[in-house]
Amino acid sequence: MRALIVGRFQPYHSGHHEAIKKILKEVEELIIVVGSSQNSFELDDPFTAGERIEMISLALKKENLFDKCFIIPIDDISQYGLWASKVISYTPEFDLVYTNNPIVKQLFEREGIEVKKMISHLKEIDSSKIRKMMTNGGKWKKLLSKPVIQYLEEMDCVKRMKAIIEKEKKE
Amino acid sequence: MRALIVGRFQPYHSGHHEAIKKILKEVEELIIVVGSSQNSFELDDPFTAGERIEMISLALKKENLFDKCFIIPIDDISQYGLWASKVISYTPEFDLVYTNNPIVKQLFEREGIEVKKMISHLKEIDSSKIRKMMTNGGKWKKLLSKPVIQYLEEMDCVKRMKAIIEKEKKE
Amino acid sequence: MRALIVGRFQPYHSGHHEAIKKILKEVEELIIVVGSSQNSFELDDPFTAGERIEMISLALKKENLFDKCFIIPIDDISQYGLWASKVISYTPEFDLVYTNNPIVKQLFEREGIEVKKMISHLKEIDSSKIRKMMTNGGKWKKLLSKPVIQYLEEMDCVKRMKAIIEKEKKE
Amino acid sequence: MRALIVGRFQPYHSGHHEAIKKILKEVEELIIVVGSSQNSFELDDPFTAGERIEMISLALKKENLFDKCFIIPIDDISQYGLWASKVISYTPEFDLVYTNNPIVKQLFEREGIEVKKMISHLKEIDSSKIRKMMTNGGKWKKLLSKPVIQYLEEMDCVKRMKAIIEKEKKE
Amino acid sequence: MRALIVGRFQPYHSGHHEAIKKILKEVEELIIVVGSSQNSFELDDPFTAGERIEMISLALKKENLFDKCFIIPIDDISQYGLWASKVISYTPEFDLVYTNNPIVKQLFEREGIEVKKMISHLKEIDSSKIRKMMTNGGKWKKLLSKPVIQYLEEMDCVKRMKAIIEKEKKE
Amino acid sequence: MRALIVGRFQPYHSGHHEAIKKILKEVEELIIVVGSSQNSFELDDPFTAGERIEMISLALKKENLFDKCFIIPIDDISQYGLWASKVISYTPEFDLVYTNNPIVKQLFEREGIEVKKMISHLKEIDSSKIRKMMTNGGKWKKLLSKPVIQYLEEMDCVKRMKAIIEKEKKE
Repeated sequence: MRALIVGRFQPYHSGHHEAIKKILKEVEELIIVVGSSQNSFELDDPFTAGERIEMISLALKKENLFDKCFIIPIDDISQYGLWASKVISYTPEFDLVYTNNPIVKQLFEREGIEVKKMISHLKEIDSSKIRKMMTNGGKWKKLLSKPVIQYLEEMDCVKRMKAIIEKEKKE
Repeated sequence: MRALIVGRFQPYHSGHHEAIKKILKEVEELIIVVGSSQNSFELDDPFTAGERIEMISLALKKENLFDKCFIIPIDDISQYGLWASKVISYTPEFDLVYTNNPIVKQLFEREGIEVKKMISHLKEIDSSKIRKMMTNGGKWKKLLSKPVIQYLEEMDCVKRMKAIIEKEKKE
Repeated sequence: MRALIVGRFQPYHSGHHEAIKKILKEVEELIIVVGSSQNSFELDDPFTAGERIEMISLALKKENLFDKCFIIPIDDISQYGLWASKVISYTPEFDLVYTNNPIVKQLFEREGIEVKKMISHLKEIDSSKIRKMMTNGGKWKKLLSKPVIQYLEEMDCVKRMKAIIEKEKKE
Repeated sequence: MRALIVGRFQPYHSGHHEAIKKILKEVEELIIVVGSSQNSFELDDPFTAGERIEMISLALKKENLFDKCFIIPIDDISQYGLWASKVISYTPEFDLVYTNNPIVKQLFEREGIEVKKMISHLKEIDSSKIRKMMTNGGKWKKLLSKPVIQYLEEMDCVKRMKAIIEKEKKE
Repeated sequence: MRALIVGRFQPYHSGHHEAIKKILKEVEELIIVVGSSQNSFELDDPFTAGERIEMISLALKKENLFDKCFIIPIDDISQYGLWASKVISYTPEFDLVYTNNPIVKQLFEREGIEVKKMISHLKEIDSSKIRKMMTNGGKWKKLLSKPVIQYLEEMDCVKRMKAIIEKEKKE
Repeated sequence: MRALIVGRFQPYHSGHHEAIKKILKEVEELIIVVGSSQNSFELDDPFTAGERIEMISLALKKENLFDKCFIIPIDDISQYGLWASKVISYTPEFDLVYTNNPIVKQLFEREGIEVKKMISHLKEIDSSKIRKMMTNGGKWKKLLSKPVIQYLEEMDCVKRMKAIIEKEKKE
């Protein structure tokens, strides 16, 4: 049994991580689609696809889950109605999708694919809050797993987020 | 005499329909450009180009006007200044454009094409209000012609609009 | 019953026309997809989408078949594997596809759509031969219906084709 | 020594002009990148790349600075993280970048290029304010150099800005 | 130490596989870029990105090498001069590139990245020959590892290749 | 009087240079469009837009002609029929076009712009021959002006051309 989930992972946080661990108790393999992979250095998308793949891998490797996962970056498509077809075309075959996004659900169901709800901590932890915390001194490190924190510190994520925020103010 | 109008038709409502019927009293043939044809399953653009063409055709066929019209989907162009040139290139030749959009007017006039104002019911009826009504229980059916209502009900447009709205709230 | 065919129609010739007339004896309505609609003024694609729609309409109107058809231009997609999904998204719903192209067949069948062979005159008449005839004095007019010939003469298609050929030689 | 600056120049105003004159006292040659060159006839981007190049040239020629400058339009790139690489690829070689935009600074520094702050009048004069003044009767002419004013008047920039504003209200 | 290689893997054959196994004796981790990932159902690119990722994974899993690899699909970029920057942006950080392609070498070296020659069986085994063998009854199975053969047979690769070839003949 | 010419300038050779000098005796200012500006590191397009702008500038500066010219890179457009509109949108206003390309002529004339033949040495000197000479030891330096030769030698154009050729052979 192989499942698929989609996220932007800006950044990859404990909510994502717990959800993935839970899913990997129900299925053998998981495809993790890194969505909007073309974006980076922007307010809602500060990290490159490569950096996001690194974060996810570091967290998965620490738990020996890396070899059960495919981490696949997928660019947005200008015709959103074709997005599910695009995902199917860029990923190895899968049996079901986990999502709480009602449109993602409808688009995959139109392709004849089973969709399940994801019961997760995703509600409480939120990437957009974490991005804000990075610029206003909030305790963002509480919401990420250790190897991800270390990686983000090494690349100086706070400096990058502050530069992005400062630019937005100006425009 | 052949005229051209542009709309996104999200959805095609009675305001559009009355305007088209009025124009077809003044000209023999009408090109109906379905703009932003690449968009679908989004808040301001819930319906695919194909679904919008279906709606327009159903309404026109009921009034025996279908054979006087060309319904042509055109994707947006990243260089908006070239948009009128693009429309000209994707449509059979035409003599004038009906529009109340001042920029559309300027872009076509730069190409040497005559532009006329559209005296229509479009002011009172508004696609964006109809889309909202679909999600909050408003009486949207009053604003569409019968074959369009039936088509939208069959495809369960309310479910789609609600899913899109729900997703927007989350992000 | 509604069917779909795809062509580039560079130009629309009697082979296309006979095939469409035959199909319209089997089904009520036909979607005619004008493929590679973004191309024009090139060796294999001299005519704009708008010009091709004009040609098809002129021929169909002469036989009172226009009101049974949807003529829809569709741009190529960089991910060819998604092309059938794109066609579905830009067209009103249809029941079957007529094609002799084995890849088009496979792509639509993957989407769960029935595909039928087209028994036609398309084999003997060939757009690429007609384009060549236009530049070397061949009898291309024998292979097109009258309103299409008249239209192509008015736009001086021979001059355009010769200009394109000349440019190719230079490069 | 050759430097590079980036702007959208919607329109080119005295703040830009003073900054460029100051930089040209420090370096021999300057590359002026006209960013978002694909945009025009939009609220934040009313002028085409060609019109913006014209404005800049007129102002530079008046001060005999034109022959020290390269004015190069560059379209946005969907992968913003690659933007600095794109600029490098579309411009003759340069030694340093002047910018006050912190993200532009980070992106060029990642490519190993020196970045300097621009001490300028840009703070007080602001393209977005000028665009607003054009539509509400403000004294925008005070903020532009003479040849730019004359050029903008000839093309009837106020009419264009008002048309764009009016359209935005409607949508 | 983490290395990167690039291929289109149409299909993934024993030459690729031997090269990867050899590299994995020299470095701990390997990024395998699936290039031209947007292409499929075409003569030189019959398989989707997802199918190619599946082939590579199956072969790597059989040798317990999957957990040392990142398999990352990357679309072509219209500005080929930016291709190496794009690869860097879509992949986790790496130390060196293995390639025998002299342009790939130059593009990565311009980015300051070390490039090594790949001493491999790639010369003798060749994806384009394998694709031809699939359509003319050649012994293509000799050139692929077992799990890849089984996968390709299940998806009926011969039927797909024959359909593509047949289409090419017609055009 | 301002004229416009278009070229890919791969590389900029004495034929181009003589033609430009001749035109600048007939008109005050010249827009030099660097076409296919997105391409580089490819067989027919080895040099980046920036490198091509550098070559042209070096040659023009030596003759004190730089301040009479606008050198503007323009990417190809997927809808070739819109190419002349795109050129107009990215360039300051001009009065006539010099070209020997019959399709370029037709596309500009459709936009109402005057087109003149270019009587030039372009026939005898040919960029594609120069590119070949760079890889087979031909006397390419005879066909370029001195500052362009020096620039190309500094960037090691022969090494780049050989790498590109070698790659083509492999594929």
